[in-house]
Amino acid sequence: MEGFAIPICSLQQSPFYTPAQFAIMKTHLIALSTCLFLCGVLLTPQTTLHADEGMWLFNDPPRKLIKEKYGFEITDQWLDHVQKSSVRFNSGGSGSFVSEDGLVMSNHHVAADCLQKLGDKDHNYYRDGFYAKPRADEKQCHDLELNVLMSIEDVTDRVNAVVKSGLAAEQAFLARRKIMAEIEKESLDKTGFRSDVVTLYQGGKYHLYRFKKYTDVRLVFAPEQQIAFFGGDPDNFEYPRFDLDVAFFRAYENGQPAKIQHYLKWSKAGAAENELIFVSGHPGRTSRLLTVAELEYHRDYRLPNALTRLYRSEVVLTAYSARSEENARRAKEELFSVQNSRKALRGMQAGLLDPELMASKRSEERRLREAATANPQLKDTVSAWDRIEKAQKVIRENAQRYNLFEAGLAFNSELFGIARTLLRAAEERPKPNGERLREFVESARESLEFQLFSDDPIYEDFEQLKLADSLTWMAEQLGPQDELAQKVLAGKSPIQRASDLVQGTKVKEVAVRKKLYTDGKPAVDAGHDPMIELARAVDSEARSLRKIIETQTEIKQQAYAEIGKARFALSGTGSYPDATFTLRLAYGVVKGYEENGRRIPYQTTLAGLYERGAEQKFKPPFDVPQTWLGRKRRLDLKTPFNFVSTADIIGGNSGSPVVNRNAEVVGLIFDGNIYSLVLDYGFTEVQARAVSVHSASIIEGLRKVYAAGKLADEIVGRP
Amino acid sequence: MEGFAIPICSLQQSPFYTPAQFAIMKTHLIALSTCLFLCGVLLTPQTTLHADEGMWLFNDPPRKLIKEKYGFEITDQWLDHVQKSSVRFNSGGSGSFVSEDGLVMSNHHVAADCLQKLGDKDHNYYRDGFYAKPRADEKQCHDLELNVLMSIEDVTDRVNAVVKSGLAAEQAFLARRKIMAEIEKESLDKTGFRSDVVTLYQGGKYHLYRFKKYTDVRLVFAPEQQIAFFGGDPDNFEYPRFDLDVAFFRAYENGQPAKIQHYLKWSKAGAAENELIFVSGHPGRTSRLLTVAELEYHRDYRLPNALTRLYRSEVVLTAYSARSEENARRAKEELFSVQNSRKALRGMQAGLLDPELMASKRSEERRLREAATANPQLKDTVSAWDRIEKAQKVIRENAQRYNLFEAGLAFNSELFGIARTLLRAAEERPKPNGERLREFVESARESLEFQLFSDDPIYEDFEQLKLADSLTWMAEQLGPQDELAQKVLAGKSPIQRASDLVQGTKVKEVAVRKKLYTDGKPAVDAGHDPMIELARAVDSEARSLRKIIETQTEIKQQAYAEIGKARFALSGTGSYPDATFTLRLAYGVVKGYEENGRRIPYQTTLAGLYERGAEQKFKPPFDVPQTWLGRKRRLDLKTPFNFVSTADIIGGNSGSPVVNRNAEVVGLIFDGNIYSLVLDYGFTEVQARAVSVHSASIIEGLRKVYAAGKLADEIVGRP
Repeated sequence: MEGFAIPICSLQQSPFYTPAQFAIMKTHLIALSTCLFLCGVLLTPQTTLHADEGMWLFNDPPRKLIKEKYGFEITDQWLDHVQKSSVRFNSGGSGSFVSEDGLVMSNHHVAADCLQKLGDKDHNYYRDGFYAKPRADEKQCHDLELNVLMSIEDVTDRVNAVVKSGLAAEQAFLARRKIMAEIEKESLDKTGFRSDVVTLYQGGKYHLYRFKKYTDVRLVFAPEQQIAFFGGDPDNFEYPRFDLDVAFFRAYENGQPAKIQHYLKWSKAGAAENELIFVSGHPGRTSRLLTVAELEYHRDYRLPNALTRLYRSEVVLTAYSARSEENARRAKEELFSVQNSRKALRGMQAGLLDPELMASKRSEERRLREAATANPQLKDTVSAWDRIEKAQKVIRENAQRYNLFEAGLAFNSELFGIARTLLRAAEERPKPNGERLREFVESARESLEFQLFSDDPIYEDFEQLKLADSLTWMAEQLGPQDELAQKVLAGKSPIQRASDLVQGTKVKEVAVRKKLYTDGKPAVDAGHDPMIELARAVDSEARSLRKIIETQTEIKQQAYAEIGKARFALSGTGSYPDATFTLRLAYGVVKGYEENGRRIPYQTTLAGLYERGAEQKFKPPFDVPQTWLGRKRRLDLKTPFNFVSTADIIGGNSGSPVVNRNAEVVGLIFDGNIYSLVLDYGFTEVQARAVSVHSASIIEGLRKVYAAGKLADEIVGRP
Repeated sequence: MEGFAIPICSLQQSPFYTPAQFAIMKTHLIALSTCLFLCGVLLTPQTTLHADEGMWLFNDPPRKLIKEKYGFEITDQWLDHVQKSSVRFNSGGSGSFVSEDGLVMSNHHVAADCLQKLGDKDHNYYRDGFYAKPRADEKQCHDLELNVLMSIEDVTDRVNAVVKSGLAAEQAFLARRKIMAEIEKESLDKTGFRSDVVTLYQGGKYHLYRFKKYTDVRLVFAPEQQIAFFGGDPDNFEYPRFDLDVAFFRAYENGQPAKIQHYLKWSKAGAAENELIFVSGHPGRTSRLLTVAELEYHRDYRLPNALTRLYRSEVVLTAYSARSEENARRAKEELFSVQNSRKALRGMQAGLLDPELMASKRSEERRLREAATANPQLKDTVSAWDRIEKAQKVIRENAQRYNLFEAGLAFNSELFGIARTLLRAAEERPKPNGERLREFVESARESLEFQLFSDDPIYEDFEQLKLADSLTWMAEQLGPQDELAQKVLAGKSPIQRASDLVQGTKVKEVAVRKKLYTDGKPAVDAGHDPMIELARAVDSEARSLRKIIETQTEIKQQAYAEIGKARFALSGTGSYPDATFTLRLAYGVVKGYEENGRRIPYQTTLAGLYERGAEQKFKPPFDVPQTWLGRKRRLDLKTPFNFVSTADIIGGNSGSPVVNRNAEVVGLIFDGNIYSLVLDYGFTEVQARAVSVHSASIIEGLRKVYAAGKLADEIVGRP
């Protein structure tokens, strides 16, 4: 992930997918099952809190904790104001209103999708930036929806009332789904607000969230990507940083700038060391309450195996890229995704290898199990941990082959993905809609066909490289005695086999794909296309592996839901649920940390940007942009640029405002340091830090580098 | 390996060491045992020959084969001339005399050691090149010895006469060693030539090689490294290539240029397509006759495991390097070695995954085993294959822990290497010389102390990074339940533990090392240095693993020797022994190949150099040097630059002359393509190719780029 804009199980940005899976996903072969399998799901609240821990519900904030520790009283008015000033970017990030005229602040990397879609052959706003000085120049984003949380209503009783105890899991699920849909529709009809029933505490609570929607959102300002993502991949997840990862939008209603009652004022001073700060945003997903058995699985199998594959892919892609500029262009997207995932997973692994974290997880689990055992009402829950452990064991036993044959790690190839889609479409489409594999249901058809018939170029050399390498990976994993591996390789070396397949397949041609897709099974069977035949050769085992994983995942989900409810019954609220990409309040202090015996200061300055660039001889990605080089002398180089704080954030918090006690903006979340990656599993404030753009640098940059004084005036409220 | 200059088990350049092992080797912890274990040893001749296969003995050349296939008669005179024109670089490469005044041609990368040592703070000859126009400017290399093979004498009977049958393995070994030393001394006394008894066919033959030595060797010419290694790591082992990987020396005797009777004349035309060519050089080591069991071990365990570790190291080092120029400088050497090894091992793995190669190995082995079974004189040999398989199984079972704890993959750290040396020196030095671990014997003492007390800087951040990563690797490999792993981590996360160790150890200071080394065991024990205590914690298991591996390796060696002798008894000569870094004759044709359905032409031209540079925007390592850019217009751009041939070469052949039927130079070996890496295990000419500098480009470059017409005249024999 570039920065922290990760919605739950986002296919585009989740660090949980290898490029093979990612590539295959793009052709819609794997959908939710892999996502559930690989993401870890359904998590429950924690009972012992660390210092500045927590992604708190706005209707259950940690008033007492904060009062005791910081002497600050969170009033209802303060909460309501911050809540309604906060904005969710449905593309996967957070933001806030910062003027009464609907100005919205977020990150450049949250704006990336809009920036890219607004570009054309003559304009690359993503790379070069954008500024609409007169409002008339503000450009409407193609498909951006912003949500503002207007109210929260507890509907737990109403939901539970229809889910009678004794209902089998499947009926319970359906009944719950039905009442939730009813509540949502009723609320929508009544209020006109987008209304979502959110499952919290794994089913311990159901809250109805009502959102005001803005769908006319226009781009106001974005800097060049070079300054927004200065330091690129090498500095991603690292600190100190020097990034102006900011963008401004404006929400419109009826063709006019929206009039906003609740927006955040700008702090004059900005964030100061040791200051108490709050982060209001939308953390996407956390896995803080995985059982110890599942955490150990992550630590000992899932992360090491995923990393082994990522290291390999990174080397293969890097070596390929180094051979020519054109190669580098072809591999760029996949390489970035691999590097990004590798960094994220290494951080998570490092966290799980910390015995303190595991010890605290273990003692918490013990406490909860003992409590469940002692409580007759929770007798069904007692076995939940064992059921998860058992399911996890089955998953572990099947993970290698599942990953190879169903998730497609043996076949890292666009062409294989296409071939398999054609094979399966021919088999699935004649079935009743409800009996098909998920990715072939009618509602997904349009998007599937759009991708399947895409004429995006497919590069044969790149395909061969990736396929040969993934076939080699398969041979390594299974050994050459494995029957299915032998069938796959067909008596050839991986390199030869990959070459034959890529050379031989006709699915390279869009017309062939269309014809096979339209003519269906007889045509697909008669075609004997070598890539389709390969997909066929593994299909029976692949499907049965998928079934095993899906079944075990369902078993785990149900057990986690029981643990969640038990935990809630025992601890009540007074804690916070796992992240659900809904609005949460985090808090902490602006504070540096120790690294390898060195003190890492809490903030950087604009001077540091030029120093970091010079130290790297201004070579990309350390090439300070021309605008910043040319206007260096105008700048106050002592202006704080980025800073770190102990606030508890995760992917999805990108673009969250950082505010002070007065609810004034002092910064803008855009990343976490490498130690914060473990926050997925559990909170720590020893070294984990949220990384923000300092509010002062935003104004300094707007005024002195981008001649955007008008925008700066609007932000600071100068008439 | 940059190019092909790899002597047997060279610590500096062998692709068989991970950086951890390499780093540790540098502090002399692991010597021959690892080398034997990891390099594969003691190999025997092959009986079915492929087309242009073979690294032939000069006293047993493939006259009949070549006569039949190419209609060319190898005369004694031709052989004698080529042999005496060939030169061995004892630093690990090959060369040839190319003028009567002692001019010697080899590769820039074979000259690297001399070039670097001749440099000083004002001169970087390795990077910038060198040319001594007047002979008086020729610069004497510090420690370069050249050998010319003058005669070969079969001493098999004399050796075997003292090795009575029935002698136990150890006595036989000692008796053999004694007679070989006697023969060598006698020959030296009689002829004044360096005299080595060379063990061929795993003991099937013993030949006495007499060499004329040149120790006054002076540098005449080398181009810039930029053109010698154009394309750098990305193009290393690849083809097409555009490298002028050449250097010239002059052998001196009594302060005067040596007068040379046998030197190679220069071909007017140079290498032409489909032409028969010969390569006379010193292949370092091949493993062509490993048993199938051992090859499968290489394919299924050794190579995948080594590669997994290399991928990981490459990513860690690359990511570290990308963070700053200074980081890149610190990691450069290790990163290059890792990339190089990764490429080599991937090539070897690809070769072993070719079922054809394995099938031919299998059928050969079957034939030999049947023959051995049928021959009563070979009854002891019959069990040799099983003994190897059994030993291999024990090695496999212990390899993981051996690699972690004794070979040091768990502790990739200079400081750990130093700490272990101090610990073990304290224990070993009081023992009688013959009972010590090999690296602590008296003859190695000076060099060990030189390295141990080196004040080369040790970078704490880099040490911590590598140690944390290798401790993580250990945790991944063994799981956190492993008792020794727990002891190593001492209840901490790998990152924390690495930081504590590197921060805490005193062996960073040379003075501390000296004191501990001098004061010995009581001081080392009393010091409680955390890094030394870590070495102590694993020492007992490490030593016992080493013993297991050494014992099994010895068992394999003896079995291989028996197979070798049996093979020799059955097939006689008429084949060629595995490479031994002694002079061999290979042959083949100048010929392109197919790659992914594309035809790769046999040669490149000077024009291609500029095209490749332009295509890469002249970014390093594709930055065509200024000299070549400035003089482009003078050059005949159609001049052939590099070419490929089917000749059977391997590391150590770097710098070998490529000659035509008239024994004229048509090229200069400097690399093999990626498909040639499998030649270690077996010959193939489908895609495997030797890569040479074309003779014409050498002259064109000397005359038109380097204004070295005088040198060119000497080479082409113009007065």
